[in-house]
Amino acid sequence: MHNRGRLLIACSDRPGIVAAIARFLFECGANIVHSDQHSTDPWGGQFLMRVDFELPDLVRRTPELVRDFDRKVATPFAMSWRLAHAGRRKRLAVFVSREEHCLLELLWQQRSGDLQADVVAVISNHPDLEPVAAQWNVPFHHVPVQASDRGAAEAQHNEILSDGIDAVILARYMQIVSAAFVERWRNRIINIHHSFLPAFVGAKPYTQAYERGVKLIGATAHYVTEELDAGPIIEQDVQRVDHRHRAADLRRIGRQVERMVLARAVRWHVEDRVLVHGNKTVVFD
Amino acid sequence: MHNRGRLLIACSDRPGIVAAIARFLFECGANIVHSDQHSTDPWGGQFLMRVDFELPDLVRRTPELVRDFDRKVATPFAMSWRLAHAGRRKRLAVFVSREEHCLLELLWQQRSGDLQADVVAVISNHPDLEPVAAQWNVPFHHVPVQASDRGAAEAQHNEILSDGIDAVILARYMQIVSAAFVERWRNRIINIHHSFLPAFVGAKPYTQAYERGVKLIGATAHYVTEELDAGPIIEQDVQRVDHRHRAADLRRIGRQVERMVLARAVRWHVEDRVLVHGNKTVVFD
Amino acid sequence: MHNRGRLLIACSDRPGIVAAIARFLFECGANIVHSDQHSTDPWGGQFLMRVDFELPDLVRRTPELVRDFDRKVATPFAMSWRLAHAGRRKRLAVFVSREEHCLLELLWQQRSGDLQADVVAVISNHPDLEPVAAQWNVPFHHVPVQASDRGAAEAQHNEILSDGIDAVILARYMQIVSAAFVERWRNRIINIHHSFLPAFVGAKPYTQAYERGVKLIGATAHYVTEELDAGPIIEQDVQRVDHRHRAADLRRIGRQVERMVLARAVRWHVEDRVLVHGNKTVVFD
Amino acid sequence: MHNRGRLLIACSDRPGIVAAIARFLFECGANIVHSDQHSTDPWGGQFLMRVDFELPDLVRRTPELVRDFDRKVATPFAMSWRLAHAGRRKRLAVFVSREEHCLLELLWQQRSGDLQADVVAVISNHPDLEPVAAQWNVPFHHVPVQASDRGAAEAQHNEILSDGIDAVILARYMQIVSAAFVERWRNRIINIHHSFLPAFVGAKPYTQAYERGVKLIGATAHYVTEELDAGPIIEQDVQRVDHRHRAADLRRIGRQVERMVLARAVRWHVEDRVLVHGNKTVVFD
Repeated sequence: MHNRGRLLIACSDRPGIVAAIARFLFECGANIVHSDQHSTDPWGGQFLMRVDFELPDLVRRTPELVRDFDRKVATPFAMSWRLAHAGRRKRLAVFVSREEHCLLELLWQQRSGDLQADVVAVISNHPDLEPVAAQWNVPFHHVPVQASDRGAAEAQHNEILSDGIDAVILARYMQIVSAAFVERWRNRIINIHHSFLPAFVGAKPYTQAYERGVKLIGATAHYVTEELDAGPIIEQDVQRVDHRHRAADLRRIGRQVERMVLARAVRWHVEDRVLVHGNKTVVFD
Repeated sequence: MHNRGRLLIACSDRPGIVAAIARFLFECGANIVHSDQHSTDPWGGQFLMRVDFELPDLVRRTPELVRDFDRKVATPFAMSWRLAHAGRRKRLAVFVSREEHCLLELLWQQRSGDLQADVVAVISNHPDLEPVAAQWNVPFHHVPVQASDRGAAEAQHNEILSDGIDAVILARYMQIVSAAFVERWRNRIINIHHSFLPAFVGAKPYTQAYERGVKLIGATAHYVTEELDAGPIIEQDVQRVDHRHRAADLRRIGRQVERMVLARAVRWHVEDRVLVHGNKTVVFD
Repeated sequence: MHNRGRLLIACSDRPGIVAAIARFLFECGANIVHSDQHSTDPWGGQFLMRVDFELPDLVRRTPELVRDFDRKVATPFAMSWRLAHAGRRKRLAVFVSREEHCLLELLWQQRSGDLQADVVAVISNHPDLEPVAAQWNVPFHHVPVQASDRGAAEAQHNEILSDGIDAVILARYMQIVSAAFVERWRNRIINIHHSFLPAFVGAKPYTQAYERGVKLIGATAHYVTEELDAGPIIEQDVQRVDHRHRAADLRRIGRQVERMVLARAVRWHVEDRVLVHGNKTVVFD
Repeated sequence: MHNRGRLLIACSDRPGIVAAIARFLFECGANIVHSDQHSTDPWGGQFLMRVDFELPDLVRRTPELVRDFDRKVATPFAMSWRLAHAGRRKRLAVFVSREEHCLLELLWQQRSGDLQADVVAVISNHPDLEPVAAQWNVPFHHVPVQASDRGAAEAQHNEILSDGIDAVILARYMQIVSAAFVERWRNRIINIHHSFLPAFVGAKPYTQAYERGVKLIGATAHYVTEELDAGPIIEQDVQRVDHRHRAADLRRIGRQVERMVLARAVRWHVEDRVLVHGNKTVVFD
């Protein structure tokens, strides 16, 4: 993957964009391996593209590539864009509270090679999962959160995250993060939460789901925005349950769905497959 | 199926219930073919049971059977119960408005033998689906509904339903039914509606789902209660969608899920597989 | 969809292909609405692409477009390619024997608008489904097949299909078609058959599946090749079953899966989403 | 779960079986919490039942219970049967070769409480997974297998398994076990293997699946019998793939399906939910 680059592009749609990008890459000597493109509307919509290409000597040529692409293609089309090296592994910080299932799934998928990224920090408001982090040789940071002084905890978080972190994963972290934190990590904080059809408002959702006799238990992974649990959805899935499942079983099954859905969302993010547009995502999976 | 009977039983749980039922059937000369039992809690919960049995000469012996079971078993245990003949096809009235997909699925499954029941009346507040009913030789009743006089329409509905109807299916019927109607058909009116994770409140749910970029489109079939769309859930399912689906595609896929979910719910109801307990169902599928 | 065109392209992969295509379309005044591209291998593999574009006055300009694309792009890159008009509805001939479920699903999806194509002929070796075709106003052709003279039937088939047919759907047609027929309709005959894990060789597969106690019943839709049931797979799906399902239930559930899988495969074919490469398909769904 | 017992029963079906069992339990003072019953055919078929009951002082009363049930119920109906204590955790030996995914899933589900059993031995023909076992504090036994002397390895296996093992899990163990071993552990050895629709015979099945372009990758968990991979199926599942997945991706996804399917099968076995009848299972899940 040494010479594999990725362009992630968003701009207003109009004729000639693909031609300009493809021509630029061709003239550089790159070969397009895979490209995904989506236009929200053929006339006047948003143009979104992910291009995977191979280019000999990619790392050395990157500064020149960035400068030229900006001048020749990105500026004329007023693009938001970035260039990613497929060969560089992203560094993840995982926030947890007391439940281990999502953290474990990520650590495991990292080891098995399913997840091409490194969990380099586990941060928690509780000490419970320190042994899990220790077992996998990942630094564990216990940062208690006082309701009266959230700023102190956040200062510690920022300190830890200053170490070249690419993305923050809220893996059942039961605390709210501040608007400033959301702003700094815009579209780079992924959260997971349970989901039901229909939704249950208020406390003890699994008890409510049990009492209504739902037949499906689901989970939603999304980017975190200022509005709680209302950010762009990355992935969702469900599992079937029935009347023999008690509220405790629903919670257990919910955990299984959560860890699978979160792991898929993180994998897609890590592979630069998720583009955000308005309050929704385009996933080039 | 001539000699196949079904007992549907609910009562407070305590030791000896299964023994009493099984002994009664054995002494009648019946053979238990299949039984499903569920206790919501081993001590002090609700006992629910569905027993399929074969008994020679069932139809002739039914009055005696009912009398004896009531005296020897049902009364001592304070049971709610009924006896159904598996061989008797249920008669369904289907309420529709303008969309045909749910009605068509039911008519089709009736013809293919997947649904062992007969649609004997189609009732609509619009004339649009008269040709569909005609194509399948089912009487069609156009009963317009005036917001100012819902009672008049309901009187007509009652007249039509007086003809030995077993269950009412709201197959995308876009009108509210009265509390009196719900009471009369308690646990015998099945409704279908779309479902999302998360739920979207307000108008144009598919547009909202599109704007949030949901990854799953679902449907819920439930018994109708006085509270809109909050009755006991019988069945739910979802289908996967992505960013390439426009709001119109989501609606199209939603229709596919709706017809499948409704058809399964109706089939289970028709086969006496659904027991209601509080605001939830036990489905012995 | 009047001015919506589609380019379907296959060639050996090398740098510059996307650039050449995109530039050509841009210089014509077309806007790329959606493009999907897949390379089987970045170096020396096969390049496959589907481009949806909008071009004012498409129909009138088509002859010029075809001539120019061939000269400027297709010939230099030695492409296999074709141009399709998204606005032109394809004409389908559906072959059946005695089972109606697949035919009905196609007719229905045509009417509901899910399938943007027209079933213009139903051909059968049995007269049983004539009433179904009549109910939907589609010409029905009863063409009996004698094992001793398959050529006679095929001559009749060819006669019927000469009427501008785009694709042939074998919707539970229980006869083998000849190698010459396969050759003439290469990658335009779609077949559906049941599938199990593991596969069951020999007669009565549902009975075998029942005796082994399989937990999933599946179906596979594929293009027909000279080797029976071994052509490129377009779509597959499964449904869950358990020990309470008897062999007859497995057959019933198998029919439900078959009609859904076939309908999806036909829809993708009709929308030019399926490209064949070797013995496999690329589905740009 | 101290006083929770389970009866697992199989016999020829005839009237009165449920009555006899239920009466026996009632007279002992037990309360039936849940019962599942299945008859393969109402007249002359096989009767299978799983009864969960609560009985005060169960452990002390077990010898008397077994003696009485045998005399009063099991002998008259010629039953195969056993009594299990729900509160006793089963002891599992897990056989592995080089791949860790199935072993890890079991260890993890044991820790999270999803699997109510203990992995007490890991046995492998390779030393590779010793660190995994060590990380989870489970004894690891490296038992190399020589093709020329399989008996020596099996003698070691028997020695290790003599320590009160309840079931043997082949978690990607790439060696064949002997007929004598199968006989000794009849219906207590669970194996997992990949499954495709259609099946691929011969070597490199994932490469074949890739070349045919399958759309689903599956796995099957089954009891091991003398005939390779043809024993009674306990559980199966699939995951969707497409043309963008290379052979290596199919293998990766196959591993995900394998670990989920195996874990479900082991859980059902451990909870005495699986009854074998002929070459199929009845799973009372």
